[in-house]
Amino acid sequence: MGGNLTLLTDLYQLTMAYGYWKNGMHDKEAVFHLFFRKHPFKGDYTIACGLEFVMDYLDNLKFDPGDIAYLGTLKTKNGNALFNESFLNYLQRMEFTCDVDAVPEGTLVHPHQPLIRIKGPLIQGQLIETALLNIVNFSSLIATKSARITKAAQGDSVLEFGLRRAQGPDGALSASRAAYIGGCHATSNVLAGRKFGIPLKGTHAHSWVMCFDSEIESFEAYANAMPDNCVFLVDTYDTEEGVKNAIVIGKRLREKGYEMSGIRLDSGDLAELSILARHLLDEAGFPNAQVVASNDLDEYRIRELKEKGARISVWGVGTRLSTAYDQPALGGVYKLAGIRDGNGEWEYRIKLSEQAIKVSNPGILNTLRIIENNEPKKDIIINEEFENKTGKMISFQGENLNFKPENGKLLLQGIYRKGKKIYNSVDIHSIRENTLSQLELFNNIKDYKIGLEKELNDLKNDLILKAKKQ
Amino acid sequence: MGGNLTLLTDLYQLTMAYGYWKNGMHDKEAVFHLFFRKHPFKGDYTIACGLEFVMDYLDNLKFDPGDIAYLGTLKTKNGNALFNESFLNYLQRMEFTCDVDAVPEGTLVHPHQPLIRIKGPLIQGQLIETALLNIVNFSSLIATKSARITKAAQGDSVLEFGLRRAQGPDGALSASRAAYIGGCHATSNVLAGRKFGIPLKGTHAHSWVMCFDSEIESFEAYANAMPDNCVFLVDTYDTEEGVKNAIVIGKRLREKGYEMSGIRLDSGDLAELSILARHLLDEAGFPNAQVVASNDLDEYRIRELKEKGARISVWGVGTRLSTAYDQPALGGVYKLAGIRDGNGEWEYRIKLSEQAIKVSNPGILNTLRIIENNEPKKDIIINEEFENKTGKMISFQGENLNFKPENGKLLLQGIYRKGKKIYNSVDIHSIRENTLSQLELFNNIKDYKIGLEKELNDLKNDLILKAKKQ
Repeated sequence: MGGNLTLLTDLYQLTMAYGYWKNGMHDKEAVFHLFFRKHPFKGDYTIACGLEFVMDYLDNLKFDPGDIAYLGTLKTKNGNALFNESFLNYLQRMEFTCDVDAVPEGTLVHPHQPLIRIKGPLIQGQLIETALLNIVNFSSLIATKSARITKAAQGDSVLEFGLRRAQGPDGALSASRAAYIGGCHATSNVLAGRKFGIPLKGTHAHSWVMCFDSEIESFEAYANAMPDNCVFLVDTYDTEEGVKNAIVIGKRLREKGYEMSGIRLDSGDLAELSILARHLLDEAGFPNAQVVASNDLDEYRIRELKEKGARISVWGVGTRLSTAYDQPALGGVYKLAGIRDGNGEWEYRIKLSEQAIKVSNPGILNTLRIIENNEPKKDIIINEEFENKTGKMISFQGENLNFKPENGKLLLQGIYRKGKKIYNSVDIHSIRENTLSQLELFNNIKDYKIGLEKELNDLKNDLILKAKKQ
Repeated sequence: MGGNLTLLTDLYQLTMAYGYWKNGMHDKEAVFHLFFRKHPFKGDYTIACGLEFVMDYLDNLKFDPGDIAYLGTLKTKNGNALFNESFLNYLQRMEFTCDVDAVPEGTLVHPHQPLIRIKGPLIQGQLIETALLNIVNFSSLIATKSARITKAAQGDSVLEFGLRRAQGPDGALSASRAAYIGGCHATSNVLAGRKFGIPLKGTHAHSWVMCFDSEIESFEAYANAMPDNCVFLVDTYDTEEGVKNAIVIGKRLREKGYEMSGIRLDSGDLAELSILARHLLDEAGFPNAQVVASNDLDEYRIRELKEKGARISVWGVGTRLSTAYDQPALGGVYKLAGIRDGNGEWEYRIKLSEQAIKVSNPGILNTLRIIENNEPKKDIIINEEFENKTGKMISFQGENLNFKPENGKLLLQGIYRKGKKIYNSVDIHSIRENTLSQLELFNNIKDYKIGLEKELNDLKNDLILKAKKQ
């Protein structure tokens, strides 16, 4: 990330921008929300992530002369210029002037809740849609996957090793950051370590062992080079022999005043082999040596291995975390919810769909999280233009419920006002702490109630009826 | 991409590098190969892609003072410096001096064949492993997915629309490039268009329609703004009405001397709706208006829709292409295959495994593609240190087969010699042509024979026996 990504958008955002501009609508005030409709991985929660990258992107938002020159080369099917010069001049002069509100990174969020709200000139809200979706979809997906995996590990260390299979260099960098925010303890990705201040972990690979005439020579050479950083990979030839070789070298290390950190398993039956390795290590007097395991791990596999009694203390998780292998995209969307008319009144908008879940919500939305005895109880999506004092909500299951507005906390925080940033970046370790504490607070997440404030629900129903009549 | 990505590596590459250096082995000549073991998507072919990014990376390979300063801050568990100063000085002075050979982008390749071969100082081959895997795995994965999708579209246009759900900004950029190389006709990603010269496509979204009081007003406004670039999205409220509204505006456009390009369907039963839309358009005198469809499309869905008689002429493919949704990672690996000993002789290396498919191949490998009557017939992995005149191969199914060495063409091309680039970048359109022509040449790809040259196969068996005895 970083740098000017203004052209990181779908072409249709630019053609629509051109259309708004030609129709003199581009400066109408509009409100858009970025949200998702379903938790990923058939789960019960999503961890919001990516705001820092969104701010990087917005801080650098500006069509540069090269961008404008490129857009000037685009042609219609008939060979005419796609955009006229006066529009290109307009784009080049355009400054970002929107209000932006967002939930802080590491917040536990639910379907339909605005993660980001953009209020400002229609043309600007439209142009930034694609980049915002790209950034927030991926980071939130990986932070959520990471939270699920670290939860399955029940307090054991989880290391993110996904760089080699991630979706491109930046896919890997964003993934390493989001994985840490979701709860991982460290990454193997050195550039991510440098860029984001994430702790680094790693020791050696099979190729190290293969460079020597025997495994034990390779362990000895490694121990000589880095006596206080030794996790020996024991499965290059035969795992049991490998553990025994590690123990021999571990004893030599101890004579020199060092303790071997542990061994790593990377193939075979990890439950069985970890029990064997633990036994051999304990018997040899290395009860503190860790058993690290890797090889296509994720939350399902970790749970399964724990059920089988695996004696693994550190989990190295790669591909399945960094690509969110079982669901590699979060279906976040970005919808127009209102336009201010000539009299300064909001005209609310919805997108109809045959599927009720796909009908968008109208208004200047925010989420009220009701907290009682320090525990979140209900989330209510509200329209900030209303008074929101009814204390009534309609849950997404259709139940009529009551809430105490005075116990509510709004999830959105101000990020930009008229294009000026008013939010200070949060350091990554605090964001990670935020995730972990939120995950603890939500006790009964399966039955957690989410829905719309009653007046907002009525507005939505009116608009649906009106649209259907048309 | 672009810029210095030297730190884009796993920490263990650096700790191993440190180990090699401390043991005085870092300058030993070694050979590594990057290859995969199984075609993705349960398919019969893989399209090699990513070499251009690999060259970008290698051209910029150099630890900068900031990298070195960061590495100097890393500590072991006991709080000692992880790397000593003299090693960090060595890294800072290090220049890339390897020989690199690779298959050109757009080449159809098979399991175990080297996509990239690195020959040079052990420490350098080790340090670049992770970045090479990251780049080649993802680009080849997406190029292959794109080839599968464009094949299913049977000559119809396929547009890549995946930016909003791709894995980060650069995940999207790499995906757009690889998708074009694999056969897509255009992308919606404007930055990818600018960076790589890929054709751009796109018109408008639901939000355009929602900004107006009625759908027909929105179409009219769009047509007025961009009369020769009109594909109307017809499903915001009701698809049949949408098509009828598009036809009304199409007629008005025609009166002004313009032709509407078509309509787009983005929800509902795409087979049924496309038949209806085609019928309405034809009846109204718009036989050349295209029916564009989008909504979770991939090769399986396109084939299914074609079987149902869908009248779709342009396929907009997003998430499932840009993230390779059904298999979001290619399992490419990078293995040491030999080290030159003190006498200048190659000592060949293999990685053992209980699974035969995971045992690596020893030697200075290349692939000989036997071409007869302009058609590829067999691929034979050879060790270039051998004479390779036996004309005998062992297929991966264990068959003994003959081949005519004189009909063989080597797949690897020289990219760097002693760190100096000797290969000229190929323009992206020629790479795409290469893919398309290769896909046509392989007629009977399901039964295509791949395997090892006999002498190489013997060497491998000897090494396996030797390793198992140990």
